[in-house]
Amino acid sequence: MPLLRRKSAPPPAVEKPEPPQLPEPPAAGPNGLRSMADHRDYLLSCIEPLPPFGQQILDSVGLSLCEDVTSAISLPRFDNSAMDGYAVRAADVADASEQSPVSLPVVGEVPAGSPAPHKLSPGSAMKIMTGAAIPEGADAVVPYEATDRGATDVRITEPSAVGQHVRRTGEDITAGTVVLRAGEHLASRAIGLLAAIGVDKVMVRPRPRVVVISTGSELVEPGLPMDNEQQIYDSNSYMLASAAKATGAQVFRVGLVPDDPERLKQVISDQLVRADLILTTGGVSQGDYDIVKQVLPELGATDFTQVAMQPGKPQGFGLIGEDKTPIIMMPGNPVSAFVSFEAFVRPVLRKLAGTAHYLRPTVRIFAGHPITSVAGKLQFARGVVHRTEEGERTVELAGGHGSHLLGGLAAANALLLIDEDTDFVAAGDEVDAWLLDEDS
Amino acid sequence: MPLLRRKSAPPPAVEKPEPPQLPEPPAAGPNGLRSMADHRDYLLSCIEPLPPFGQQILDSVGLSLCEDVTSAISLPRFDNSAMDGYAVRAADVADASEQSPVSLPVVGEVPAGSPAPHKLSPGSAMKIMTGAAIPEGADAVVPYEATDRGATDVRITEPSAVGQHVRRTGEDITAGTVVLRAGEHLASRAIGLLAAIGVDKVMVRPRPRVVVISTGSELVEPGLPMDNEQQIYDSNSYMLASAAKATGAQVFRVGLVPDDPERLKQVISDQLVRADLILTTGGVSQGDYDIVKQVLPELGATDFTQVAMQPGKPQGFGLIGEDKTPIIMMPGNPVSAFVSFEAFVRPVLRKLAGTAHYLRPTVRIFAGHPITSVAGKLQFARGVVHRTEEGERTVELAGGHGSHLLGGLAAANALLLIDEDTDFVAAGDEVDAWLLDEDS
Repeated sequence: MPLLRRKSAPPPAVEKPEPPQLPEPPAAGPNGLRSMADHRDYLLSCIEPLPPFGQQILDSVGLSLCEDVTSAISLPRFDNSAMDGYAVRAADVADASEQSPVSLPVVGEVPAGSPAPHKLSPGSAMKIMTGAAIPEGADAVVPYEATDRGATDVRITEPSAVGQHVRRTGEDITAGTVVLRAGEHLASRAIGLLAAIGVDKVMVRPRPRVVVISTGSELVEPGLPMDNEQQIYDSNSYMLASAAKATGAQVFRVGLVPDDPERLKQVISDQLVRADLILTTGGVSQGDYDIVKQVLPELGATDFTQVAMQPGKPQGFGLIGEDKTPIIMMPGNPVSAFVSFEAFVRPVLRKLAGTAHYLRPTVRIFAGHPITSVAGKLQFARGVVHRTEEGERTVELAGGHGSHLLGGLAAANALLLIDEDTDFVAAGDEVDAWLLDEDS
Repeated sequence: MPLLRRKSAPPPAVEKPEPPQLPEPPAAGPNGLRSMADHRDYLLSCIEPLPPFGQQILDSVGLSLCEDVTSAISLPRFDNSAMDGYAVRAADVADASEQSPVSLPVVGEVPAGSPAPHKLSPGSAMKIMTGAAIPEGADAVVPYEATDRGATDVRITEPSAVGQHVRRTGEDITAGTVVLRAGEHLASRAIGLLAAIGVDKVMVRPRPRVVVISTGSELVEPGLPMDNEQQIYDSNSYMLASAAKATGAQVFRVGLVPDDPERLKQVISDQLVRADLILTTGGVSQGDYDIVKQVLPELGATDFTQVAMQPGKPQGFGLIGEDKTPIIMMPGNPVSAFVSFEAFVRPVLRKLAGTAHYLRPTVRIFAGHPITSVAGKLQFARGVVHRTEEGERTVELAGGHGSHLLGGLAAANALLLIDEDTDFVAAGDEVDAWLLDEDS
């Protein structure tokens, strides 16, 4: 049939893309606000750990293992010496002592990594190094310290039991054993074990790739001059990028975008290709220039809400673009952004990375002075934790309540969590806290 | 004078290089062994923190600041609004209430980042966004929530005090204040503060560059086939490289060098150019093939000693090459190497990086079962720490005593320190421990 007359097939049914949707968000509390824990758990429920990939073991430290690892070999692989000394038959030195040493001819030498030159005959000894294979015929090692270190003959001054100073094949690990399980966080000891069983690559979850964007026409890049008296330096993108880095993420700081909806949409769309998570600050509140809130619904499914916490009340979340990339949209005040990171972003990053514990442990610390709070919201106060001489921890507030007070935030080493029902903490009472520094 | 006849100048006096020397090492104890703490403090006394260099703030998170940073600007830089709302004169709204709202004409709008269009006249209001500069003539902000959000006229239903919702210039930081001090560990909050005051680069101590070498002719690279039955996979260089990485170092894993003195000398000499610290394992004991101990004195000043600890007794240290680069030479058994890293290398790395606390905090943990130990030496046992339901920590031993038992080491999350005078710890007694994982 001539080509031109061929009846054209009906056009393929255009699959209408499903309108993007988020799972049903949790109900607000009686005050119309969502609780911090509800919001965090909602975000966690909307994301999954990143898919595993194969990685060199040296680049896997700190990552989460995604497979059970079975050892193909035993450790030790072969009976070997735990000491530098002489391989013997225990029976030949059973009567050795300082008073009546036993003298044996030295019939060879076994360095680590090489086979013994020959079998050990009864009544002789073979020099052996730590880690070297026990020669056939030997069943014990006499360490140098119990000998005269002789080269052709050796005087042995202590008896030795069968198996003494011999590391037995498989006494550490038996071939076929699962040595590490999926989900394990790979510390240096585990990397050493993987190498020891000959494994050079493992399946791990990658470091999440995080794109950080701050919005606001008032922002200027640090290091650059200001144009007018009303501008401020962009601190959020630097702070959040650093915090994400310290949480193990691979970070792309895009920096500042002015309050221009088209520009913002373009920047975010361009970044989707390299993002496992996008973070924005600013533009989520009630203001007329809150463009994040305006624009983001065009890019995917979003949830803008008010959380019963202070600072950090206005919060946005979405799954955007083709890959439903998660985006967390935080308020623009620096302290609000930091608290939002700790409350929401850090747990999400840890889930993406496959870490077992998403949440910082909450510790109880004695208040060093009275602390007032506002009931009805979870207050995140910035605190400086000290250890008393007795090793007890006490905390004092750093800076004031304002969500713009970066000086106090930088001085703080803890966030205090003062719950909805509390408006006063007396000196000496315990408060909940998240310790922000490894050493605090 | 013709060139050829010119009298040749006397050859320049060859400056005889000073023979390399280490400070006097600490005296050994009564058992002829050096204590762990003495050896560690000796190593620390032989090295200095790395010299500072200028670094972009985003690459400085986790590093140690080497200068006092003074803010050139105040924060806030200008009086600005803490809320989205209307800038007013407080006097004009003093009587406003739900019952008798005050109506004011809206004479303009101040977005963040731009100056007010003009001065605010008495009896009028100007729309203002969070962070925008308070217009001249205004002294308070009425938030949207207390208004009808009017565009040409606004009805205000609450009074406002002078200064309400106004963030005052300098109330966070005053220009000229030192905001961060030399020695400070730069967390994300500090990076945010630096950005906020417009600082894009700071002097910090760099990450130490660590070269890791394992020695031994019996070693085979993981992933490669073995040649004979007496070989083992190199695990130390992977474990130590990972541990150094996790401590914040930049790591070059050179890997395995056979027991060949010339080859070892060459490899170490080649690496000096990029090393702030060199780590080796193996070859420091009494064996005939202990080439590290043989060769290193040719490269600089060295100190090989026996430390009263188990595992990890034979230890070497040196300052080698032109730059007196520190080298720590550890025993080759994997558990010995790991314990040596924790006891000596980690504190040295932290001092090189300018970190304030070199040592892991020692915590007291309840023994979950009886633990026997050998008196006369500090025992490093591998432990698994659990938290009981009441939040108390208890510890059980992981694996056996042998310094070749990598399986137990990988399972451990703590090192127990059982001192020289103790040979038995009863179940329920407290033992000293170093917690190896952030979360344990």
